[in-house]
Amino acid sequence: MTKKLMAEVFGTFILVFFGCGSAVLMGEQIGMLGISIAFGLAIVAAAYSIGAISGAHLNPAVSLGFLMSGRMPAGEFAGYVLAQIAGAILGALVVFLIASGKTGYSLAVNGLGQNGFGPGYLGEYTMGAALIFELVATFVFVCVILAATASHVSAASTALAGLAIGLTLAAIHLVGINVTGVSVNPARSIGPAIFVGGKAIADLWVFIVAPLAGGAAAGLAHASGFFRPAGVQAEAKGRASAV
Amino acid sequence: MTKKLMAEVFGTFILVFFGCGSAVLMGEQIGMLGISIAFGLAIVAAAYSIGAISGAHLNPAVSLGFLMSGRMPAGEFAGYVLAQIAGAILGALVVFLIASGKTGYSLAVNGLGQNGFGPGYLGEYTMGAALIFELVATFVFVCVILAATASHVSAASTALAGLAIGLTLAAIHLVGINVTGVSVNPARSIGPAIFVGGKAIADLWVFIVAPLAGGAAAGLAHASGFFRPAGVQAEAKGRASAV
Amino acid sequence: MTKKLMAEVFGTFILVFFGCGSAVLMGEQIGMLGISIAFGLAIVAAAYSIGAISGAHLNPAVSLGFLMSGRMPAGEFAGYVLAQIAGAILGALVVFLIASGKTGYSLAVNGLGQNGFGPGYLGEYTMGAALIFELVATFVFVCVILAATASHVSAASTALAGLAIGLTLAAIHLVGINVTGVSVNPARSIGPAIFVGGKAIADLWVFIVAPLAGGAAAGLAHASGFFRPAGVQAEAKGRASAV
Amino acid sequence: MTKKLMAEVFGTFILVFFGCGSAVLMGEQIGMLGISIAFGLAIVAAAYSIGAISGAHLNPAVSLGFLMSGRMPAGEFAGYVLAQIAGAILGALVVFLIASGKTGYSLAVNGLGQNGFGPGYLGEYTMGAALIFELVATFVFVCVILAATASHVSAASTALAGLAIGLTLAAIHLVGINVTGVSVNPARSIGPAIFVGGKAIADLWVFIVAPLAGGAAAGLAHASGFFRPAGVQAEAKGRASAV
Repeated sequence: MTKKLMAEVFGTFILVFFGCGSAVLMGEQIGMLGISIAFGLAIVAAAYSIGAISGAHLNPAVSLGFLMSGRMPAGEFAGYVLAQIAGAILGALVVFLIASGKTGYSLAVNGLGQNGFGPGYLGEYTMGAALIFELVATFVFVCVILAATASHVSAASTALAGLAIGLTLAAIHLVGINVTGVSVNPARSIGPAIFVGGKAIADLWVFIVAPLAGGAAAGLAHASGFFRPAGVQAEAKGRASAV
Repeated sequence: MTKKLMAEVFGTFILVFFGCGSAVLMGEQIGMLGISIAFGLAIVAAAYSIGAISGAHLNPAVSLGFLMSGRMPAGEFAGYVLAQIAGAILGALVVFLIASGKTGYSLAVNGLGQNGFGPGYLGEYTMGAALIFELVATFVFVCVILAATASHVSAASTALAGLAIGLTLAAIHLVGINVTGVSVNPARSIGPAIFVGGKAIADLWVFIVAPLAGGAAAGLAHASGFFRPAGVQAEAKGRASAV
Repeated sequence: MTKKLMAEVFGTFILVFFGCGSAVLMGEQIGMLGISIAFGLAIVAAAYSIGAISGAHLNPAVSLGFLMSGRMPAGEFAGYVLAQIAGAILGALVVFLIASGKTGYSLAVNGLGQNGFGPGYLGEYTMGAALIFELVATFVFVCVILAATASHVSAASTALAGLAIGLTLAAIHLVGINVTGVSVNPARSIGPAIFVGGKAIADLWVFIVAPLAGGAAAGLAHASGFFRPAGVQAEAKGRASAV
Repeated sequence: MTKKLMAEVFGTFILVFFGCGSAVLMGEQIGMLGISIAFGLAIVAAAYSIGAISGAHLNPAVSLGFLMSGRMPAGEFAGYVLAQIAGAILGALVVFLIASGKTGYSLAVNGLGQNGFGPGYLGEYTMGAALIFELVATFVFVCVILAATASHVSAASTALAGLAIGLTLAAIHLVGINVTGVSVNPARSIGPAIFVGGKAIADLWVFIVAPLAGGAAAGLAHASGFFRPAGVQAEAKGRASAV
C-alpha cells in the first residue's frame, strides 16, 4: 500500500509539473493548444511508469469512480486522495521554484495554473457554465477510464488505455481551458490554489464538488453495466487500475 | 440492442461535445489545428470506451458503410442513426449551455460549430467544392474504418484501430475545415444545425447527401474485396465494430 | 498484384490529398505545424487501411529501399512506382478541384503544395541544402521503415509500425518544410508538379534523385544487417510490407 | 557491441537532426510547440528502428540510469556515451550544413539549438531555475523510461514504451524550452555547443551535471524497487533496453 501511495504522489506530481508547468512557464509561447497537449501527455507518462503499481488514478474523481463502481476497496480511497493532493502540491511547488527564476514573475499576477471562473479569469464564464463543464467533462473522462480498463477489454487494448485516457484529457482541455482552466480533478486544483490563495481558494469548491459528482456518476453508470457489452459478466471487485 | 443504442448516443455526444465544443469555446485560442485535434481525439475517447459495445460508429455514413459492406444487420441501421442524431443534439445542447455562460456569446453570430459553405461561411468555397470534399473525405474515412477493423487484421492492429481512425479524422479536418467545417457525418451536422437554424439548415442537405454517398461507396468497395489481401476469405456477416 | 497496385494508388492518393490538401486549403490557418501533422497522419490512415494488402509503401524511395534490401521482388518495383505516381496525380487533381472552388485561388500563385528550393520558394535555401536535406531525411525515413517492419520485430511492435512511421514523417516535415517543402518521395513531388509546371518541373529532379539515393542507401544498410540485432538471422526475401 | 554503438550513433543523430533541426530551420514557423513535438517524435523514430538493437538510450543520463539500476553492464557505459556524443555532433553538423544554405543564417546569431540559461538566452531564467528544471525533468524522464521497459511490463505495453517515452519527452519540452531549451541529455547539449562555442560551452556544465544527477537518482529509485509492483521479483541484471 505504501508503494501505491508513493506511486500516486509521483504520478500526480508529473501531472501538475507537466500541465501547470507548461501553462506557467510556456503558456505565452505554446498557447492553449500546447497546454492541452502537455496535460494529456502527462497522463501518458504517468500511466506507462506507475500504472502497473497504483493504477495511475492521479485524481480523486477517478478514485471515487473506481470506488463507486466497486472496483476499489473502500479502505484505499482516503489514502489515494491524500497522496494525490500531496503530489499536486509538490508539483505546484517545483513549478513555483522554477518560475521564480524569471525576472518579473509574480505569483499574484502570473499564478501557477490555478483553476477559476467568473470575472477576471480567462473567458470570464459564469459559475453555472463552469459547473456544467466540469461535471460533464469529468463524467465523460471517468467513463472513458473505467471502460478502457474494464476486465472485458482485450490485453492489446488495455495496453493502449493509458494513451487513450491521456488523449481524452487533452481533448477535454481543448474544450474547456477558456471556461475553467480545466480541472476535472480536485487534486490538480488544490495544488496551485494553496500557493496562489485568494480567488483560487474562493473558486476551489467548484473544482472539488463538480469533478467528484461527475466521477461518482460515472462510477455508478459503470456499476450499472452500461459500459459492459451484452453477455459479459459483471466485473470482479477490486480491479482498480486506471491503465 | 438498447445498450448499443445508448452507447451510440454517448459516443456521438462525445464527438460533438469535444469537436464542436472546442470550435465554439476555444476556436480563437487553439485555431483550426486545435479543433482538428479535438475532433480526432473525440473518436479515440469514444472508441476506447464504447467501442466494445456498439462498435463506435458515431456516424450514419459509417453505419451505412457497414450496412453496404454486409457487416451490419439491416435491422440495426435505423436505430443506430437515430441514436447518433440524438447524441449529436445532446452534445450541441451542452455546448450551447456552456457557451451561453460567456458575456457576448450569440448563437446567431458565434454559432455552434455548424457546417456550411458559400458566401458568409469560412473560406466561402462553392457548393461544388463542398460536395467534392465531403464525398471524397467520407469515402476515404469509411474505407479506413472498414479496412482497419476487418476480420483479417491482427488483434494487435485491431486494438490500434480506434487510434488510427481518430487520427484519420484529425487529418481530414486539417484539410477541410476552411471548406465546409468538415462534416463527413450527417449526425454531427444535424446536431448544431437544429439550434442554429437558418443557413445551417439550408446547407444541411450537402452534409447528409455527400457523406452518405461516400460511406455507401466505401461499403461497396469493401464488399467487393478491395481491402482484403489476396487469399483472405470474404468476411463473415455482422462484424459491425468500427473499432 | 492488381489489388496491390490499386492499394498503392489509393494510399498515395491519401498522402497527397491529406498532405498537399492541408497545405493548399488550410496552410494559412494551420501553419507548417499543421501541415506536418497532416502528412504524418496520412501515413497512419494508409497504413491501417491498405497496409495489409500492399505494405503501404506510397513512395518510390521506399519501394527502392525494399528492393535494395532484398525484401521486394524486382518484378513488382515498376508497377508499384507507376501506381504511386498515379495516386499522387489523382490526389493533386482532387486538391486542385476543391481549391478552384475558392474565389481568388490561382494555380500559379497558390500552387498545389509542390516541392522546390532556391529564390522564390519558401525559405529560399540553396540547391545544396535541398539535396542534403532530402538525401539525409529520406535515408533516415526509409531506415526507420525497414527496421520497424523487419521480421525480427515482435507482433505487438509491428502493429505500431504504421503509427511510428507516420510520426517520423511528421517530424521530418517539422525539420524541412521551409527548406524544400519536404518530398522524401518522388511520387508526392511529381503529382503536384504536373499541374503547376514551370519551376515545379524544373526543380523536380532534386526530388527524384535525392530521395531515391537516400532510399537505396537505406536499403543497402538494411541488407548489410545494420538494423538486425546481433544473433538474428538475415531476413527471408520478399517481406515487402512497409507496415 | 559495435552494432549497438553504431545504433546509438544513428539514434542520437536522429534526435539532434529532428529536434535541433526543427528549432534552427523551422523555429519561427512552428514555434516551441512544434519543436517540442519534433523532439518527442525523434524518440519514436529511433525507438522503432534501433530500439531492438541497442535499447535506444540516445542519452548518457539514460544510460547512467540503466547502469545505476543494475540493468546495464558497466563495461558498456563508456562506449554508449561516446557513441551518443558522436551521433549528436554528426546531427548538429548536418543541421549546420543545411542552415548554411539560407541567406542570412549566422551560427553566432541563429545558433544550432544549443541549450543555455541566464541573460541573453530565451526566457533568461536563473542558473538555479535551470538546475532545478533539468534535474527534476531528467529524473522524471528516466523514471518513466526505466519503468516503461521493466521486465514486469506486459509485451503489449512494452511495445508502446517507445511511443510513451517520446511523448514524455515532448511534454518535458512543453514545460521547459523557455527555461533552458531543454537538455535532459548531455549528448544533445554537447553536439550543438561544440559548433556554437562561447556561451553554449560556458553553460554546458549545467546540462552535463543536472541530467546525470537526475538520471542516476532515477536509476537508484528504480533499483530500490520503487517502480516494481508489490510481489514482483527484482529484475534480472542486464535488461538495458530503453524501449
